[in-house]
Amino acid sequence: MKNILLASTSTLFNGDYLDYLLPVLKTHFKNCKTILFIPYARPGGISYDAYTKKASDAFKIIDIEIKGLHEFKHPVEAIKNAEGMFTGGGNTFVLLNELYKNNCVDILKNVISDGTPYLGTSAGSNICGQNIKTTNDMPIVYPPSFNALQLVPFNINPHYLDPEVNSKHMGETRETRINEFHTQNNLPVIGLREGSWLEVKNETILLKGNLEARIFEKDQKPYEIKPDTLITF
Amino acid sequence: MKNILLASTSTLFNGDYLDYLLPVLKTHFKNCKTILFIPYARPGGISYDAYTKKASDAFKIIDIEIKGLHEFKHPVEAIKNAEGMFTGGGNTFVLLNELYKNNCVDILKNVISDGTPYLGTSAGSNICGQNIKTTNDMPIVYPPSFNALQLVPFNINPHYLDPEVNSKHMGETRETRINEFHTQNNLPVIGLREGSWLEVKNETILLKGNLEARIFEKDQKPYEIKPDTLITF
Repeated sequence: MKNILLASTSTLFNGDYLDYLLPVLKTHFKNCKTILFIPYARPGGISYDAYTKKASDAFKIIDIEIKGLHEFKHPVEAIKNAEGMFTGGGNTFVLLNELYKNNCVDILKNVISDGTPYLGTSAGSNICGQNIKTTNDMPIVYPPSFNALQLVPFNINPHYLDPEVNSKHMGETRETRINEFHTQNNLPVIGLREGSWLEVKNETILLKGNLEARIFEKDQKPYEIKPDTLITF
Repeated sequence: MKNILLASTSTLFNGDYLDYLLPVLKTHFKNCKTILFIPYARPGGISYDAYTKKASDAFKIIDIEIKGLHEFKHPVEAIKNAEGMFTGGGNTFVLLNELYKNNCVDILKNVISDGTPYLGTSAGSNICGQNIKTTNDMPIVYPPSFNALQLVPFNINPHYLDPEVNSKHMGETRETRINEFHTQNNLPVIGLREGSWLEVKNETILLKGNLEARIFEKDQKPYEIKPDTLITF
């Protein structure tokens, strides 16, 4: 009964917040008047209120009201009662840490598994993988575990970035980093480019958007999959 | 009595491994016939043997022999007895995790504080800060703690990268990431560009190389410091 959208990014270059996704979100959240927004990831250190306002402004365009999880005294109850949910991007470590602190990990996993429509962007998508070991974020806090919501049987690398051929920078490319992941872990990883998202309907997972995604499996050469490819591992 | 070099990178664009540092290393390790190499960070998943060979080939040019820490049955004893030490770059999480696993954190901290000459590059520099919360690396393993060797009173961000003005990528810039760090932490951070290193002689810390470094302090605008600036926080 899962009904999940996992987007690489909230915002495209030169775009407004969530604008490229709004037509899809209108359908995805068609039975929701109000959506619970999880602002814990705080991109750039923005406040919960400011972040919730940003989400609210975007969802207003499709006539959906947003409530921030931080506005509730009992976050677990708020998640239980939500008609739909959206977790915004920012820092994945901060996000997961707050979810653990507020005892939200299990309940989130349960209600999303039971069918509450969910949208994640960036860090909010990352936490739906098996663990956060393929995030691009800086580990600015130490969460009690890297284990995540495990709603899909793989890991996600959002904002996937192809190597820049003319770069003179000697830091690791994204592909090198994911290869390093596979020296320590066996899980497949989906490199999701900005503009792509995964649509999860029950156990059926499709790549959506106009771009290909790059798939990394242990001991295999990375390969590309086309939009509308069914993802099965 | 500290005698430490902390380099942003081992290799410059179009350069060979460690070549730009060799004249400095010749002086730094002038009393060493053999240096203990810590290969735990495994850049790109390279084997300990292959990584040690790479370090060995570079140090051969200045007539210094390299022994890999993994070649010793008792790593703690090997560190105690080392004439000098070098920790190479790669994945900071893997490096710190292995140091904890092999009980090397305290002994490393002690011998380096007591004067064993040390070189770190990239991840090997990162671990000399207070913690690894400003690494750029992917968190591919979960170390028992993010606390590091704490040999300098700040954190390091190696391979520091200025924002690319023409980028269409919506992932966070390095500066944004470090600003996010300061929403959760108070430590100063030194953004060390490729080609820069810190020279630590006892408690005197100098920026070396030809480039400026970018300093991030909580609640302050980031600022640049020139080569040979004394670093005091």
